[in-house]
Amino acid sequence: MLTFVGLGLWDERSVTVEGREALREADRVFAEFYTSKLAGSTIDDLESSHDIEVEVRDREGVEQDPGPILDAAETGDAVFCTAGDTMIATTHVDLRLRAHERGIETRVIHGTTAAAAAASLTGLQNYRFGKATTLPFPYAHGGDDVPDSVLDTVDANRERGLHTLCFLDIKVDHELAETDEYMAASTAAGLLTDAGRGDELAALVARAGSPDPVVTADRLAALAERDFGDPLHLLVLPGELHYIERDALVELADAPADLADERLA
Amino acid sequence: MLTFVGLGLWDERSVTVEGREALREADRVFAEFYTSKLAGSTIDDLESSHDIEVEVRDREGVEQDPGPILDAAETGDAVFCTAGDTMIATTHVDLRLRAHERGIETRVIHGTTAAAAAASLTGLQNYRFGKATTLPFPYAHGGDDVPDSVLDTVDANRERGLHTLCFLDIKVDHELAETDEYMAASTAAGLLTDAGRGDELAALVARAGSPDPVVTADRLAALAERDFGDPLHLLVLPGELHYIERDALVELADAPADLADERLA
Repeated sequence: MLTFVGLGLWDERSVTVEGREALREADRVFAEFYTSKLAGSTIDDLESSHDIEVEVRDREGVEQDPGPILDAAETGDAVFCTAGDTMIATTHVDLRLRAHERGIETRVIHGTTAAAAAASLTGLQNYRFGKATTLPFPYAHGGDDVPDSVLDTVDANRERGLHTLCFLDIKVDHELAETDEYMAASTAAGLLTDAGRGDELAALVARAGSPDPVVTADRLAALAERDFGDPLHLLVLPGELHYIERDALVELADAPADLADERLA
Repeated sequence: MLTFVGLGLWDERSVTVEGREALREADRVFAEFYTSKLAGSTIDDLESSHDIEVEVRDREGVEQDPGPILDAAETGDAVFCTAGDTMIATTHVDLRLRAHERGIETRVIHGTTAAAAAASLTGLQNYRFGKATTLPFPYAHGGDDVPDSVLDTVDANRERGLHTLCFLDIKVDHELAETDEYMAASTAAGLLTDAGRGDELAALVARAGSPDPVVTADRLAALAERDFGDPLHLLVLPGELHYIERDALVELADAPADLADERLA
């Protein structure tokens, strides 16, 4: 049996009660933290809090060489866990398909996700978001700016009045990065300002799922000048605003009222 | 202090460890189940499992008369909880804004959501979904068919190659419904078939978050003929498929291979 457990957004207490039971009952617990991480928790915290031993795998150990994980799932109860929800990244669907091919039963225990938290914390309505996008580090896409595909997604959503959730690049164990890197919202806002979007309203969420997330809305050029502290960060580029969304951005995220009013549907 | 706690998708164990702690430490726990419900759990289960007393409020008691909840939050630790994530429905942003106006500190403890589970369980990638929509009961929108706005959303997403998550109507304590009603995926598939979409591929998810969710993909006309059991159900109308998405629908959801192949990007 291979159970995929989403650890949720922040620390060792972000997992569901059911997920924790699966962790505790498993014969072996595998994890990867290259697609995301629990910023509020170390692996030691995770192990001691749940009284488990966690075997961390790098990208190669999941994508190229998943054999040991599948072997463990074939002969016992194995858990594979990640931050957020385990199936939100393509590669783990691939792992599930490989298990399925080998006749191993699989199960998914869901975790809280950054996409839901972005809507939840900004007060922007879930069903008014269009396609999401990811802003890459310039070195990672070989340019020195924002890829056209990112701006096209924002514009195509906005044409329909929709908000865009912008995930920010994460590079863990990347050959071009000297240390693990998590793009800061201010860096993202700076890139978008350089792309001519500095006057546009954006909302940022820092440390979603933590006890003290920061949620701030302002012009991109203004956000680019500020420091929002530790990762992970997200950016939301609003489309049209329903009046409650407008109030949420102004009252809960300190958006300049004139800027928010311009976006009222 | 007013803490919003998302109870997650299925039963009393779908809440996060942190959410459970907040429930247990609260002086009073309020809940509403008219926007969604924990299909795998009764209120008694919730109370006995977490050793709490839950005060359930109807829509009027949240939207028109939130005073008692706010009073409790002003003088002590109050929790307001719902299935899923508490802030995904507009009305609770309104409750948060009212608390904010009265100077009451608020906090959101996120829950797992149906939107994330739909992507996670079908293997369709989160960032390839466009705007979501809701299919209403015909009596609720005064017609006898699928509103144009729903079809327009599906078509506008598909034009960009994007998937559409289709929430299915819920009517609890509704003046036009004799009992609580949760639209079945087969009913939804029948309505869409009547709207001329019967030959299109769709994936349905029944009882997301439960130990045995059903995930099945087929032509809408075929889905309309089947019974997928107890609520809650969701429908996903895929856009273009990445090859891993295609494999997931065929291998994990029994999609007819020819139908899935037609959608390959």
